[in-house]
Amino acid sequence: MLVVKNATIVTCNANHAVIEKGALVARGGRLTFVGKQQDLPPHGGAQILDAKGDIIMPGLINMHAHCGDSLFRGLVEDLPLEPWLQTVWKAEAAILGSRENCALGTRLGIAELLLGGVTCVMDMFWHCETGFEAAREADIRWASGEIFFDMPGMDGYQSADRPERARAMFAQHDELVGVLPHGTYTVGPENLKLARDISRQHGGFFCTHAAETAQEQAIIRKRYGRSVLHHLHDLDLLGASTVLAHCVHVDDSEIGLMAETGTHMVHNPMSNLKLASGFAPVPEMLAAGINVTLGTDGPISGNDMDMWLAMRLAATLHKARSGDATAVSTRQVLHMATLCGASALGAEKDLGSLEKGKRADFIRVETGSVHALPLFDAITHLVYSTNRQDVRDVFVGGRRVVHDRKITTLDTDKLKEKIKQLVPDIAASLKEQ
Amino acid sequence: MLVVKNATIVTCNANHAVIEKGALVARGGRLTFVGKQQDLPPHGGAQILDAKGDIIMPGLINMHAHCGDSLFRGLVEDLPLEPWLQTVWKAEAAILGSRENCALGTRLGIAELLLGGVTCVMDMFWHCETGFEAAREADIRWASGEIFFDMPGMDGYQSADRPERARAMFAQHDELVGVLPHGTYTVGPENLKLARDISRQHGGFFCTHAAETAQEQAIIRKRYGRSVLHHLHDLDLLGASTVLAHCVHVDDSEIGLMAETGTHMVHNPMSNLKLASGFAPVPEMLAAGINVTLGTDGPISGNDMDMWLAMRLAATLHKARSGDATAVSTRQVLHMATLCGASALGAEKDLGSLEKGKRADFIRVETGSVHALPLFDAITHLVYSTNRQDVRDVFVGGRRVVHDRKITTLDTDKLKEKIKQLVPDIAASLKEQ
Repeated sequence: MLVVKNATIVTCNANHAVIEKGALVARGGRLTFVGKQQDLPPHGGAQILDAKGDIIMPGLINMHAHCGDSLFRGLVEDLPLEPWLQTVWKAEAAILGSRENCALGTRLGIAELLLGGVTCVMDMFWHCETGFEAAREADIRWASGEIFFDMPGMDGYQSADRPERARAMFAQHDELVGVLPHGTYTVGPENLKLARDISRQHGGFFCTHAAETAQEQAIIRKRYGRSVLHHLHDLDLLGASTVLAHCVHVDDSEIGLMAETGTHMVHNPMSNLKLASGFAPVPEMLAAGINVTLGTDGPISGNDMDMWLAMRLAATLHKARSGDATAVSTRQVLHMATLCGASALGAEKDLGSLEKGKRADFIRVETGSVHALPLFDAITHLVYSTNRQDVRDVFVGGRRVVHDRKITTLDTDKLKEKIKQLVPDIAASLKEQ
Repeated sequence: MLVVKNATIVTCNANHAVIEKGALVARGGRLTFVGKQQDLPPHGGAQILDAKGDIIMPGLINMHAHCGDSLFRGLVEDLPLEPWLQTVWKAEAAILGSRENCALGTRLGIAELLLGGVTCVMDMFWHCETGFEAAREADIRWASGEIFFDMPGMDGYQSADRPERARAMFAQHDELVGVLPHGTYTVGPENLKLARDISRQHGGFFCTHAAETAQEQAIIRKRYGRSVLHHLHDLDLLGASTVLAHCVHVDDSEIGLMAETGTHMVHNPMSNLKLASGFAPVPEMLAAGINVTLGTDGPISGNDMDMWLAMRLAATLHKARSGDATAVSTRQVLHMATLCGASALGAEKDLGSLEKGKRADFIRVETGSVHALPLFDAITHLVYSTNRQDVRDVFVGGRRVVHDRKITTLDTDKLKEKIKQLVPDIAASLKEQ
């Protein structure tokens, strides 16, 4: 039994409740009490954490990541999209055939996520079984599954290998498993439907990149005579189990389709900025009632996986774009990074807020740094004034996986050393024919 | 004599030179050597800093700040601009009549800046003499001077008090002094010209907010029948000693005026996002040859004064706005935050790059964190992958003012305690009639 005392608890529940002088109790991996400290049940013998007035909130849920791409952070920069992609893919093809390399990059990404307060992530990457393994080792909740891709993948597998591999993931893991076709421009209708069927058969999620760029919309229109979202809809791929990453270039009719079908959207603001994709119509989506969640994309496109930056951008970009200083509220943004992610994963009974009975996934955010003083309102403070360096402790299922800014489940020194050893190979990969 | 060894030196000089296995020597507050470690002159008895392969670069120059506004961080959020301003001003009026409070807020801001690698800042705030004092105490380079404001100021001074106070700043300080009228909508033509004359007489700079919002442009057009930049030009206020903050809403003709006159511009991306001001036409300004510098604005509008965030936004926002993934390069952005700032201050012989003879203002950026590995190119790494938490040591004039992420010149614990004591008064200020 773990008791956290003396905390400002930002529950992220449906009513955005904040509990001053709050406490929580974790037992058997779940929260058995969340409330005022004065109402704490008897807890003799429990392990006690004094939060010293800091904020305790749910662990963040990063709904779109490619952790393994951490290996290529900063390798190719400042090129137009097309030559940029060609160069990145060249490096990926040279390095990611190795399961070990994939696992190494994924562990680096997981380390970054945990230190930044992320306790659950949806990851799309090659050799996806290595991701599940690394996540179990590090103790981060891992939503993933097999990528579908019509061409041979960076992992060396063929399109025909995907279905069996996808089914194996469902057989091996009980929770948060899905199928993740890369996109409508890289996966044809038959394979998309196959991915859908496997996912449905196993009760999993379906996730794909969608409408990230204007070019992608143009390709799909040319190839299929309709927009990306209409294409997905015509293939019966939208719905409450579907999560679409990006959705930057969607029109009102596509927003309408997403809303009608209960399709979830992942907003990835930093990646959209840096790759010149544009600004996703988030206020319009929220107005339409779409469940908007938040992600970082991989470190190739956004350079890191900082959910605090993603929150700050989600709360401010749309203000500048619309000229309305009230567009997208801090409460909405904090939900995007927590409860809305849980909902998109079909896990709102377990994750995304601090409520009795849910999993004990929570983080301690230090509030006394000079860049973060004073503190007048906990929710706006988290969205506008908090950096990932303020995350001090991270708990997953009641287990402390980050203790005073150090990961307890991974040997980060060894990890860094291995990364450094691989760097010459990564750099050399760009020079190969 | 201080010798820094084993560093990747990002000089930020005109050619963007990066020196691998580099070293530098500081003596008498200036750099006496910057080059390859193998070429180090004899340095027996010198204090040695082993950078262990980290990046050494010039201290950042934040060209637009209101440090004292740190007191009000997060006090008023998510309101439309007009009621937001009225509420903020109410709190400022209640708190900032006190020189002590101004000094306290300014010290908090300076602590944040130093920890984030800023060694020089242009600050616009009430009771400006307290800013100069706090800066001398903390040892940060301070470009400031008297605010001009036609109404009574938050400091309790009248418009008629400003000229004498402005002259006193020039009398008391030798370097980096100017006059800072608030803006064209709050200071009439006669007072603007008076500020200009005092500044010119003393060889100082002239800085004002300009064209931050569409509303400001509308006010000036209605009042004077011309745009903000044409109004400033007609009053003979543009030129190589003039620094304009924001310039979000400027047309081609105004960009042309700035370029012709050599007027400097400060880009404040986070503030422009959060206040819904919009996107400054930075690529157009760079193309026109305008010296674009970088700032954070105060913590009321941007919530903090993080120059790394400002760099990252300056390098990415304009990509998304233009759809061109090569818009605004990392080299340009790194210069905005260093050499271009020095140039705008007329201090390019002393500041802004690591070159022999310049002041020894430099910072050590740790490169081994999990969010920042691997490192392929030092310049893109600094702009896209570095956070302020990576700043480990900060030197101003060769003196270590931040040592392993702790300020040596300020008692931050005492400072935090004083801030906490003032918080109830700040919160109460909103409730007063």
